[in-house]
Amino acid sequence: MSSAVSPLALPFPELPAIGGVTLRVARARYKTWDRCDLTYAELAPGTAVAGVTTQSRCPSPEVEWCRRALVLGNARALVVNAGNSNAFTGDRGRAAVEAIAARTAGHLGCMPSDVFVASTGVIGVPLPIDRAEAGLDAAFVAEPCDWRAATETIGTTDTFAKAAVTRAVVDGRTVTLVGIIKGSGMIAPDMATMLGFIFTDAAVEAPFLQRALSAANAASFSCITVDSDTSTSDTVLAFATGTAGNAPLAADDSDGADAFRAALADLCLQLAHLVVRDGEGASKFIRIDVTGAESDRSAHRVAMSVANSPLVKTAIAGEDANWGRVVMAVGKAGEAAERDRLAIRFGNTQVAEGGLAVSGYDEAPVAAHLKGQDVEIGVDLGMGEGRATVWTCDLTHGYISINADYRS
Amino acid sequence: MSSAVSPLALPFPELPAIGGVTLRVARARYKTWDRCDLTYAELAPGTAVAGVTTQSRCPSPEVEWCRRALVLGNARALVVNAGNSNAFTGDRGRAAVEAIAARTAGHLGCMPSDVFVASTGVIGVPLPIDRAEAGLDAAFVAEPCDWRAATETIGTTDTFAKAAVTRAVVDGRTVTLVGIIKGSGMIAPDMATMLGFIFTDAAVEAPFLQRALSAANAASFSCITVDSDTSTSDTVLAFATGTAGNAPLAADDSDGADAFRAALADLCLQLAHLVVRDGEGASKFIRIDVTGAESDRSAHRVAMSVANSPLVKTAIAGEDANWGRVVMAVGKAGEAAERDRLAIRFGNTQVAEGGLAVSGYDEAPVAAHLKGQDVEIGVDLGMGEGRATVWTCDLTHGYISINADYRS
Repeated sequence: MSSAVSPLALPFPELPAIGGVTLRVARARYKTWDRCDLTYAELAPGTAVAGVTTQSRCPSPEVEWCRRALVLGNARALVVNAGNSNAFTGDRGRAAVEAIAARTAGHLGCMPSDVFVASTGVIGVPLPIDRAEAGLDAAFVAEPCDWRAATETIGTTDTFAKAAVTRAVVDGRTVTLVGIIKGSGMIAPDMATMLGFIFTDAAVEAPFLQRALSAANAASFSCITVDSDTSTSDTVLAFATGTAGNAPLAADDSDGADAFRAALADLCLQLAHLVVRDGEGASKFIRIDVTGAESDRSAHRVAMSVANSPLVKTAIAGEDANWGRVVMAVGKAGEAAERDRLAIRFGNTQVAEGGLAVSGYDEAPVAAHLKGQDVEIGVDLGMGEGRATVWTCDLTHGYISINADYRS
Repeated sequence: MSSAVSPLALPFPELPAIGGVTLRVARARYKTWDRCDLTYAELAPGTAVAGVTTQSRCPSPEVEWCRRALVLGNARALVVNAGNSNAFTGDRGRAAVEAIAARTAGHLGCMPSDVFVASTGVIGVPLPIDRAEAGLDAAFVAEPCDWRAATETIGTTDTFAKAAVTRAVVDGRTVTLVGIIKGSGMIAPDMATMLGFIFTDAAVEAPFLQRALSAANAASFSCITVDSDTSTSDTVLAFATGTAGNAPLAADDSDGADAFRAALADLCLQLAHLVVRDGEGASKFIRIDVTGAESDRSAHRVAMSVANSPLVKTAIAGEDANWGRVVMAVGKAGEAAERDRLAIRFGNTQVAEGGLAVSGYDEAPVAAHLKGQDVEIGVDLGMGEGRATVWTCDLTHGYISINADYRS
């Protein structure tokens, strides 16, 4: 974990154990630091898995490994390495992933394809196989740890540990979902965020779990951005151990399916918001609602154009009600928009409509809204029924300080 | 002009007078500042004009006015207002532009459509007509001024005055082209940059001038970015007074056409580079060459993805040879790319090829290259013959400081 905790941090929640999930951590010493950096989650036989991964054309070998393993839909273990993403490392990187899967499979007596691997950290340095194997051997015999220790171990530049819990009633049983996540910079997930892991005791067949996760992802991880930079390693995996004893969820209209999907969607949204709250240098949590677009997809693109605009983000950092920069960001989005139908809201205050500032515009309530930690911007395009909501943070000196000397 | 001069600033060049162009400046007091903020250029009868303007869906009324006037291709005057962009101001903004054109036309005895108007500054505040008219009246009777005074008067957050000169021989006559430009932030021109004005004494018919300017723009203003934010007011206008006495350039293959196009392209590239050199907070001038793409268009998009990546830009600000961030930016560009064919160069040093760091990679020459003010990044995609070059600057604390309290 980095030095100063984000001012937007939330306390670590009380998290229950999930049946069929055992967590352990160890020191692989991927960097010259004195902290655990290898997380090992053992999963009960029969665990179903689903996942979403980065759309980057330069994915890490871990991402490629997970994609292949997801086709089979079974999981017995998750290994997460922090401090080295192993991305862009060619055959040596692939060999490291295969070695981790093989060693874990040997320990558990399962198939290597039952082992999911994720790594996060600097790009371009092959993950040292000897350290990974020694770390794994230490993890295999370590005492089980709690969620907080596992969450801290998957983190890198994160300033606080991020996790959430939701519940649903399925087939008369209460099932529990716990998610842990890491990510702070290089956040513009394109189907997923840095690294997020969800564990549930619900019995869920893998295809159902995949559909539910993909839908939840579309409204959560795909709707956040810190800095518009998409990682080579973005991965969200969901594991369902089935120890809750419900009749396995399979059909989309089965009993409890709606409740499970809602709980998963809620969990993903909580986790996504936590990543924004730990955005590098963030001092404001910003929600952007776009309505009146030609389509939901168009609304999403306009919202992302506003959310990724350095000028909008620095204005909010300066608590400056410079709504003209929102006009600029809408104008550059490349989506259907007409200046003279555009309306803009800050908090509950309408600031512009019909192509100009509202008559008698009073900046005082907007300035007051911008003083708070939670900022809301509303954009109505006046074109159609499309709508979208995205979340981001402001752009501050902290972002520059963190990223101008990250490797040093 | 703002406080600290960019470390990348170049000295103001020696600029000759252009026959048929008379410059004057005045104080319209668009802001509470004690400086000239209205520039008035009077152009000889018969001056041809061409222009390129922002692709923003929320253009300023000045941009709309220029687009309509460009259809006619004749110019007698240019009026530039600094300190207020007049963008997103509805009918009041349109009325201000019409008033400026009408008053100038009355003074010169020409058509309002012969008067070109451009404004730059804060968005959303109608340009005060009374101040514009009083400023114009003062300009009409002011002593003519030099290029430097006019260049300083069109500037806002610019830290140095930016201008360039080129020459060509057309029809046995040496013709001269002078360009002045302003722009520092909100720079991701989509067909044009903030405000640039080119004056030549060559005789050029308007359609030829438009074709030449559009071509020059595609390789200059459209290939720079400071912060990925596209202005509502981007405008580049080229005026040809014809006082050089050459036979007017009209056909693309006429004598001197190549020389004129080359001089115009060189001028536009010089001006575009000056804007990058005055990028808000810039400490490094960065050139990005992409080769081996599927097409030139694809290469341009990959180059812009690298140029706009906050993580690449902050790494360079920190003189950190973190080439993994270039991999990330290529991967997120959404263009055809294959990780294992990708090669990356910093300066003259190959750092990665075939999907991993080069064997025996020595960071020392790369670190030395990054210490300099001029940074070159080469990306070869290994896919085809497409290539592109773009220019940008780094992202520093200066950008945050300038933009977090711009209006205050």
